[in-house]
Parts: sequence; structure tokens; C-alpha cells
Amino acid sequence: MYKKIDKKDIDYLISLCGKDRVFTGDEINEDFSHDELAGIKKYPDILVNAINTEEVSKIMKYAYENNIPITPRGQGTGLVGGSVAINGGIMLNLSEMNKILELDEENLTLTVEPGVLLMEISKYVEDKELFYPPDPGEKSATIGGNINTNAGGMRAVKYGVTRDYVRGLEIVLPNGEIMNVGGKVVKNSSGYSIKDLIVGSEGTLGIVTKAILKLLPLPKKAISLLVPFPDLEMAIETVPKIIKSKVIPTAIEYMVKDVILDSEEFLGKKFPDSSSDAYLLLTFDGNSKEEIENAYEGVAHICLESGALDVLISDTSERQESIWTARGAFLEAIKASTTEMDECDVVVPRNKIAEFVKYAQELETKFDIRIRSFGHAGDGNLHIYVLRDALSQRHWEEKLNNVFEAMYCKADELGGMVSGEHGIGYAKKPFLQESMGEDTMELLKSIKKAFDTKNILNPGKVC
Amino acid sequence: MYKKIDKKDIDYLISLCGKDRVFTGDEINEDFSHDELAGIKKYPDILVNAINTEEVSKIMKYAYENNIPITPRGQGTGLVGGSVAINGGIMLNLSEMNKILELDEENLTLTVEPGVLLMEISKYVEDKELFYPPDPGEKSATIGGNINTNAGGMRAVKYGVTRDYVRGLEIVLPNGEIMNVGGKVVKNSSGYSIKDLIVGSEGTLGIVTKAILKLLPLPKKAISLLVPFPDLEMAIETVPKIIKSKVIPTAIEYMVKDVILDSEEFLGKKFPDSSSDAYLLLTFDGNSKEEIENAYEGVAHICLESGALDVLISDTSERQESIWTARGAFLEAIKASTTEMDECDVVVPRNKIAEFVKYAQELETKFDIRIRSFGHAGDGNLHIYVLRDALSQRHWEEKLNNVFEAMYCKADELGGMVSGEHGIGYAKKPFLQESMGEDTMELLKSIKKAFDTKNILNPGKVC
Repeated sequence: MYKKIDKKDIDYLISLCGKDRVFTGDEINEDFSHDELAGIKKYPDILVNAINTEEVSKIMKYAYENNIPITPRGQGTGLVGGSVAINGGIMLNLSEMNKILELDEENLTLTVEPGVLLMEISKYVEDKELFYPPDPGEKSATIGGNINTNAGGMRAVKYGVTRDYVRGLEIVLPNGEIMNVGGKVVKNSSGYSIKDLIVGSEGTLGIVTKAILKLLPLPKKAISLLVPFPDLEMAIETVPKIIKSKVIPTAIEYMVKDVILDSEEFLGKKFPDSSSDAYLLLTFDGNSKEEIENAYEGVAHICLESGALDVLISDTSERQESIWTARGAFLEAIKASTTEMDECDVVVPRNKIAEFVKYAQELETKFDIRIRSFGHAGDGNLHIYVLRDALSQRHWEEKLNNVFEAMYCKADELGGMVSGEHGIGYAKKPFLQESMGEDTMELLKSIKKAFDTKNILNPGKVC
Repeated sequence: MYKKIDKKDIDYLISLCGKDRVFTGDEINEDFSHDELAGIKKYPDILVNAINTEEVSKIMKYAYENNIPITPRGQGTGLVGGSVAINGGIMLNLSEMNKILELDEENLTLTVEPGVLLMEISKYVEDKELFYPPDPGEKSATIGGNINTNAGGMRAVKYGVTRDYVRGLEIVLPNGEIMNVGGKVVKNSSGYSIKDLIVGSEGTLGIVTKAILKLLPLPKKAISLLVPFPDLEMAIETVPKIIKSKVIPTAIEYMVKDVILDSEEFLGKKFPDSSSDAYLLLTFDGNSKEEIENAYEGVAHICLESGALDVLISDTSERQESIWTARGAFLEAIKASTTEMDECDVVVPRNKIAEFVKYAQELETKFDIRIRSFGHAGDGNLHIYVLRDALSQRHWEEKLNNVFEAMYCKADELGGMVSGEHGIGYAKKPFLQESMGEDTMELLKSIKKAFDTKNILNPGKVC
């Protein structure tokens, strides 16, 4: 059992951080009781806005000595309840640790605090003709959150995921100790990779207080192809053919008419084309027009051969902007179209997407519930939204559970995983357990225990 | 204390694998008592050639139940004693598990057993216009060994290291359980990344019995530039300027005259040029001549501006072959030039290489011992060889220790790491300990314990 927060604890935190950055009871904004989607709600007993590593370390040490749970938190844009203080205790808000500390152009690294927003990083480095490739839809997420969920985003097809761009981390361990893992080095084979264990661990093994990110030179040009198809199956079945053709686009997204219409309504802006039932959206980048043309010409041909109705080329930044803005608004647009929703973030091998999407569509009829999806066709990561609309609480919970069970079971069957990029948090734990099996879960728990003997850092998440 | 091997154990292993694949006493070839370099020698009590996962699992389970240490082994090309049975017990030779199991062109993955050689993988996939980028000098190493050391190689500058190309693993845990981690999926955020913990763990956490590797389309062309400089410092100081110019070559190696001469003698073949004191060797790859030319022209200009004497372009496969064959023979050539040697595989941020190499050269005079080096200038990973020549055992050990202490201490000072790609094994443990500090070593030990409560899998290595 955890210690109940009392006046002594509050006084200690105020003595450390000052009255302005410590909040209790009604002073805590409602935002800090939930994240973006999960329907999981719980207030922390104390909210502290930390501003440096030493503070984080001291607060963590105090919590360790006094057996108080700590929930680290960024912008709260998560979708699985990972940053909700389900056991109460202290919420450690890291969003004020938001400085870009160093750009090292000789080593192509950027050192940042965890609270820096994704959109700030891309702007900062792109102004210097450098490139931080991971590109999740939610640009107002913090880099700390992205590291903790191993976020992927649209460009994973060509460039990989957040893990591939984390060179080094400063972390605060559950006992308050500060540790540096990895560094600016390109290669490393010096003991177990704690850095890679922290990436994707959802704030349960250590608190990321600094990150050294790998950058690339910014590709000089990019073009997008919007490819309408008569139906979704035909669109998605084209993807493995593209991959097999030995051309790797930067991104391959799929989208359907319903979602595009939702997004037009949400943004109050027309999408370049919404006359077809399904679309692939592809991007190619490179350093010259010729290089990009060489890459996309073959792909355009494959699309047309596979039944595409047209290939619309966007080579101006305005046109590309309008398409990608719409794409970026899909989640919010779907959310605005219903009363409540929950999301399934499965990832399957990319030649199994068509099968999975078709299965998910059948569930709509089978369980009589509205389902919307869009996603990263090029890397097999799907975002499937189950919408509550006018359902009663009991019906909603029952149907949601049935649909989720069916989808995760299908993902398993196809060699897929519970989460591609949003993590497990609190909401997806039962599904992880089912997919991994008991032995693997036991191993995860042993690893958790190796870092956090008292189970005080973001307890109740992942495993 | 481990159980001493007796007749019962031998009988059990013979009942499992047959008499042909179980060896004891004098039947064990001397090769299995050491690896390539470390001067660490110890015979296992029993050598077993395993041929499938079920066997590995059963042997591991038996060892677990009977408290017998197991040392997994591939081709024994390691350089730190990682595959030497320093506690005796069972050596599990996995080199007969050497089948390429599946090429999946729609998911761009290759599934292999651990005993497949690196050279077999590259040949197999390149015949199909696909590409497995990691490119360590030792092509007769197994993929299992490469995964266990997170091997890097020459192309890490552009393509990253082995970790970046491991999508999924089948492992046998120390209790004999078989577990699958990761898969064919491109993204994954489903619990702690056990896959990434196994990569680089040197056979101490689990035995890799199958691997799913990520492939890329094979670049259509490559050219190499051999760039002579009047001295090594000038050569290496050019590297951060290249990186800063926002062009990423595939490889940037440095080499000095002495090593080139050793290699000419060793191979009985002339190197294209050996008149200068130092060289950079750069490779660029891409899909068209223009794309590659665009990339290397600026770099050639930077080299000349930084004092290069010339830029020799190799665009035929014969000329490139002759250069890279020489480069591949450096280790063996240096080895052949002396009686015994040991190696330091430090990695430093790439803008610190010049400072480190200069420091290492000074140690040659300071400690009056011959030192040779070459390495991956583009990723900061250096291979520095300390040569025994005619030194007595006592002098050799003393000097070697002093030189190593000095080098690792300098690496630490520059933000570097003990090992870039060869691992820690048995030989480098004291240096890892010094560099990491006690707290981090304790954490590594806790992780080891989470996997291997009885400390029977490759004990005495890493931590």
C-alpha cells in the first residue's frame, strides 16, 4: 500500500519548488485527470511542475523514501491512459522542461529537454536544413511522450520510428538516481542497452529528463501522390506490390471517403478530391526532382495497373499542405463526429493490412456499431476507431469490448502486435496480457522490478 | 557453485542429440577453447552441436534444472572472450543451425537461423536486388554473433547498426522457455522491448535461435573515393566538416601507410596508392550516377580544401574490390605482423576522433610499445591494436594494461564508450565497470537476474 499524501509531503514539495508550482485539490486543472481518449479519469493528490533534473531527482527520491506513487506527464496527448495518476500520489508535469539545449552540427545531434513539443523540434531543425524524421500526427505532443511510447508516425515506412532517432538519454531512476545512457556516439555495444529499454517503456522504468536525438540532412524536395481507388480493398492490396517493387516511399497512408468528409466538415475546407471511395496518399522525398521522379513513376504505374482511377500529383507546397492538414485532422474530425470513442492501434505485417481492414469493416455490421479507420498502410499500423454515438453506457462497454477482443485476436493471428505506436498504458493492459502470454508478462514484470523495486513509478501501467 | 559435469549429464545430452554431436575431453577441438583475440583460454566440459530450437530449449532446461553453465557459440570470431566457456560446463555450438528460412519480399524481411554467416546473407539477398546493410569486416561471423554484439561495420554512417535491422527474434530463455519477441511488424509499442535488450547482450540473457531481419532495396550503384592526405590528423579533421555539409556518405574509413603496407604484404597485392601517410576512404551509394555525383562532388571539394593531396575515384567494381579487400584484411595483416595483440574498440562522438587518435599515437612513444589503428572515421568507432612483438609476458601485460587504462579513460573524457561494436565479453569487463560506475553496473546485474536467476547462461560476461 502506498502512503497517503499529507501536509508534510505538500510542505516538502513547496519547500523544494515554491508555492507557484505545487497544486493540490481544487487547484489542479481538470486536464490533469485524464488524457486524450481513454475514458480513464483520476486526479493526482499533488501536481508539481518540475523545471530541472535535480528537482525531478529530489522529488523521485522523496517519493521512493516515502512510498508515494509518481506519474510523469507531458502534454497529456496519449490515448491509453498512460499519464493518468490512477493511484493518485504525485503527478510530475515535465512540460515546463521545454528547452532545446544544443544543436551539434558536427555530430548531427539535437539535445532537448523532455517537454519540447514535436512541432518545435521540426521547425527548429528544418530552419537549419536538418531533419528529425519521426512524424506522428499529434504535433503538440512532447518529445518525452514520443520517446516513452516509441512513437512512429507517417514517415516510418522510409525512416523508422522514434527509437531509431534516440542516441542518448538522461534518466531519473525510481530511487531518484540520475543516469546517462547512450550518448552522441553512433555505435554502442557497451553493456545492455538501457536506452532502448527506456524507449517505449511509458514512464514506468525511469523519467526521461534529457534526450540526445539523431538528425539527418533535410531532403531538398518532396512530392505527394493522391491516388483514388474504387474501393479500400483494392487500394490497400496495392501496398505490398509497391514495397515489392523495391521503391520505398517516405509515407503511404490510406483513407476512405467517410473520414475525408468528416475532416472537410471539421476543418471547413475542401479536400482536393473526395469523389472516390478510397485513397492512398504517398510521399516521396529526395534531393532532386529527377531522383524523386525516378522513384514515383514506377509506383504510379503499379497503382494504375492495380485499379487506381487516377494519380494526382502534388508538387507545390500549398497543395501538399492542404492534403496533409486534412490527414492530420482525421483523429479530431472523427472524434467530433461522435459522443465518445476508443481506438485500436494494432500493427500487422504490411502484407496483412488488407485482410485486417476488411475484417474490421465486417465487425461494423456484426456488432452494429460505427467503426472508422485510417492509418499507415506502408508500415502496417492501423488506427481503428469504435464510435459510441447514441449507445447507452452498458451497451457501449459491452460492444466496445467485443469489438476490441475480436480485433486484437485477429491481429495476433496475423502476426501482429497490440500497439504500433500509442503504447499500452492502462487501457490496453488486458489485451497485451492476452497477446503476450503469461511467461512474457512475467518477464516484463521482472524487468520492471529490476528498475523499480517499490513499484512507485507510474504503477499499474504496461504490466 | 555450479554442478560438476558427470557421466549422467553426458548420457543425457547423447540421448538427446546422438553421439555424433556431443564431444568431451580430447574430442573437443582446440578452436573451441578461445576466440579470435582475447588471450583467454578455457575448454568447456562438453561441446554440443545443436541443430534446432527444441534441442536448444531442452539442453537449456536441463542445464537450468541441474545448475550447469552454458556458453552459446557461433564461429568464435569474437574479440573479447564472449564465447569462451570460462566456467566450463556445456558449450552450445549453434553454427549448424545455419538455414535461411524465408525471404518475404512483401514485408522486406529475411528469416534466418543464428548460424548463417554474414557473407551468406549478403550474397543471398543481393542476388535478389535486396540489401542487408550492416557490414562488419569479419564476413565469416554468424548473424547470431552479430546480433549479440550489435555489430556495426563500415556502412553504419549512413545505414546504422545491426539493432536497426533486427525486427524480431526467437529466443530460448535461461529456464529453457522459447519466446518470440518483435516480429515482421515495422512499428511496435507493445510492452518493454525485449528484442532490443537481447540485441547486444552477448548471449547472457537468452539464446537467439531465429531472427527476422529487415532488408532494403539494393542501391543500384556505388562509388568509392580514396583520398590521400599528408598526415592522419588532417585526414580525420576533415570528417566533421563532411558531416556538417549535410551529405551522408555510406562509409568513411581512415587508414595509415603502415597498415596499408602490412596489408600489401599479407595479401601479396598492391594497394592502388600507398605513397601518402594517411587516407580517407569514402563510399557513396544511390540509384543513379547523377544522384551519387551530386553527393560526392561537394565532399571531394571539402577534402581538397582541407589539405587532401588528391581524390582518387573508383567507379569500377574491380578497383573498388581491390581497395575494400585490402581494408577487410587490415585486422589479419596487423595480427600477422606481430606475436600477439589486443584491441581497443572505443567509440567517441565523431568530432572527437582526431583528438582520440592523436592521443593514442602519443601512447606509442610514452609506453614504448607498437600501436596500430584503423577504423570507422565516419561513425567515431576506432580499432586500436596494441602489439606485443618481442615483449616478455610480464612487460606485455603491464604495458597493455597501462595503455588500455589510458585509452578508456580518454574515451570517457570525450563522451565515448568502451565498445562500439565488439562488445564487453570477459576481457573488457573491468573497463566497462570503470566507465559506467557502480550504480549502472548494479542495474545491469538486476536486468541479468531478471532473465537468469541462476546465472547459468554465459556467466561471467558483460556484468
